[in-house]
Amino acid sequence: MPARNKQWLLASRPRRAAVESDFELVETDPPAPRDGQVLVKVRFLSLDPYMRGRMDDARSYAPSQELGQVMVGGTAGEVVESRHPAFQAGDAVVGMGGWQELFLSDGQGLRKVDAATLPLSAHLGPAGMPGVTAWYGLDRVGQPRAGETALVTAAAGAVGSVAGQLARLRGCRAVGVAGGPAKCAHVVGDLGFDACVDYRAPDFREALKAACPSGVDFVFENVGGPVLDAALARMNPFGRVALCGLVAGYQGGEIPIRGVRLLLVNRVRLQGFIVSDHLDLWPQAIRELAGLLASGKLRYRETVADGIESAPRAFVGMLRGENLGKQLVRVS
Amino acid sequence: MPARNKQWLLASRPRRAAVESDFELVETDPPAPRDGQVLVKVRFLSLDPYMRGRMDDARSYAPSQELGQVMVGGTAGEVVESRHPAFQAGDAVVGMGGWQELFLSDGQGLRKVDAATLPLSAHLGPAGMPGVTAWYGLDRVGQPRAGETALVTAAAGAVGSVAGQLARLRGCRAVGVAGGPAKCAHVVGDLGFDACVDYRAPDFREALKAACPSGVDFVFENVGGPVLDAALARMNPFGRVALCGLVAGYQGGEIPIRGVRLLLVNRVRLQGFIVSDHLDLWPQAIRELAGLLASGKLRYRETVADGIESAPRAFVGMLRGENLGKQLVRVS
Repeated sequence: MPARNKQWLLASRPRRAAVESDFELVETDPPAPRDGQVLVKVRFLSLDPYMRGRMDDARSYAPSQELGQVMVGGTAGEVVESRHPAFQAGDAVVGMGGWQELFLSDGQGLRKVDAATLPLSAHLGPAGMPGVTAWYGLDRVGQPRAGETALVTAAAGAVGSVAGQLARLRGCRAVGVAGGPAKCAHVVGDLGFDACVDYRAPDFREALKAACPSGVDFVFENVGGPVLDAALARMNPFGRVALCGLVAGYQGGEIPIRGVRLLLVNRVRLQGFIVSDHLDLWPQAIRELAGLLASGKLRYRETVADGIESAPRAFVGMLRGENLGKQLVRVS
Repeated sequence: MPARNKQWLLASRPRRAAVESDFELVETDPPAPRDGQVLVKVRFLSLDPYMRGRMDDARSYAPSQELGQVMVGGTAGEVVESRHPAFQAGDAVVGMGGWQELFLSDGQGLRKVDAATLPLSAHLGPAGMPGVTAWYGLDRVGQPRAGETALVTAAAGAVGSVAGQLARLRGCRAVGVAGGPAKCAHVVGDLGFDACVDYRAPDFREALKAACPSGVDFVFENVGGPVLDAALARMNPFGRVALCGLVAGYQGGEIPIRGVRLLLVNRVRLQGFIVSDHLDLWPQAIRELAGLLASGKLRYRETVADGIESAPRAFVGMLRGENLGKQLVRVS
């Protein structure tokens, strides 16, 4: 157990793009659990696009991250000391531990996981929040049918990579959108999508059209802006959009939908969703995802930064799309 | 029966705004019905915003109006000669007769209506396509519940006027958006909405906020552009948007949705719809609407232009929002 607890605090709210200096590293004494509490040592910190929204002081579905407090974040770790009847030292647990090495929990939101069958980090990725997000968007929002074309943006990311594979397992043609040829090659070659289109390429719209010869029936949208408009331009009648993220706008850019007329003409259903609204479905989703992982039907990639010190740099890089798959920080 | 049949043809496609000279008046000999046909004398021609879309040569849910052909349009009229077993002279009928005084039908899409209980013109308004459109958007898309706030744009129009009243009958707070104080006074005073906000007023956004003290749960959207963005800014979590029309964009203007982030943050469901997809529900909807009209629970207003010659001028005026309620042309 570390002698001191390194923590990243939110030091300032970004004007537009988040920068490393928005965070401040401090060291405190390790906390001691009282009755009903557990002390958790963080092994992996999950870095996710939603965190950028929490840095702003804007109305959202969750309260803003307070300045001067430890940054919010999902973690996988190990109970090192327990004074809570449901946990004991050595338990592998997932929870919202934040950007730090050690944290106390009263057990609320702390979930024991099986770190024998699946690697611990998978519980922050395909068998965790990003996986459930993909599952919900497919199974409860878009419900694409066999033979339909499912377009997944940010397809090389933690959520998109699962969404496209789930679509394929439903019998859909899965087409990804990702940034750059290396990511596109990964999405097709490693993840098994039918095609992947590079949104940075000058012929993006033509390539998208060619990759979706029967149009698009379902969009799993993580990006927004021109990527979403390009998708809407290929949309078939009665298409669905599961609006999961808008990473194109997280750094302050404008991301209007220009093809509004297409939403009407094609009778599109666009549904914004937040996976934390649906905690009742997480056990079912995780059971299904863990099964697919165990049987090798669901593949995933991780980008792991080393040491809690690296968290801000890795976070800013993830917002720029530098990661492949789930962005993690190995804390211990 | 007129000795000649006056007809309006589409003469040119608008560059941006439709103008009267896009239409050309011709006179032809009255057609004679063959076996299996009826000849209908048009009493009322319905003018509707969707017609503007048909004038363009763009991909849409319906084929474009062909140049040099009689403009498409809903009509209410009277059978003057029948060689069809299901109709006889004197029957009141509603159908897609187009912008002309007389037309032949093989009975497809021609519907006998009861012109004794309701005025004939009501079958083109609250008991016809606009009424069913409002009914579908409320009952099948938005499903607002008692106590919720329903915002209806183009509230003084044929569809909006019914949508807001149906929302009130469901126990919602019904708030309209309309252009100018006279329309707003009509929407509240005559139609019984709880409030109505003038989108042309400089304090539109503040007035909208004041009219929706509990936010907005459902938007029945006929307009688009800044009006839709203002509505999204007031939207409560889990709000719904029934996207029925986009009249702000029908004359060629850009109508982006800027508040895309609000769709995500508030988990909004936005659903485009076209009432002609749901012909199976029309009988139920019309029965309910006719009942409400007969009992005085549903009120409506018409703006009637006189003579088939007036159709282009009335149509252009409607697109500018000059009508109150259903825009009709009294043809005979």
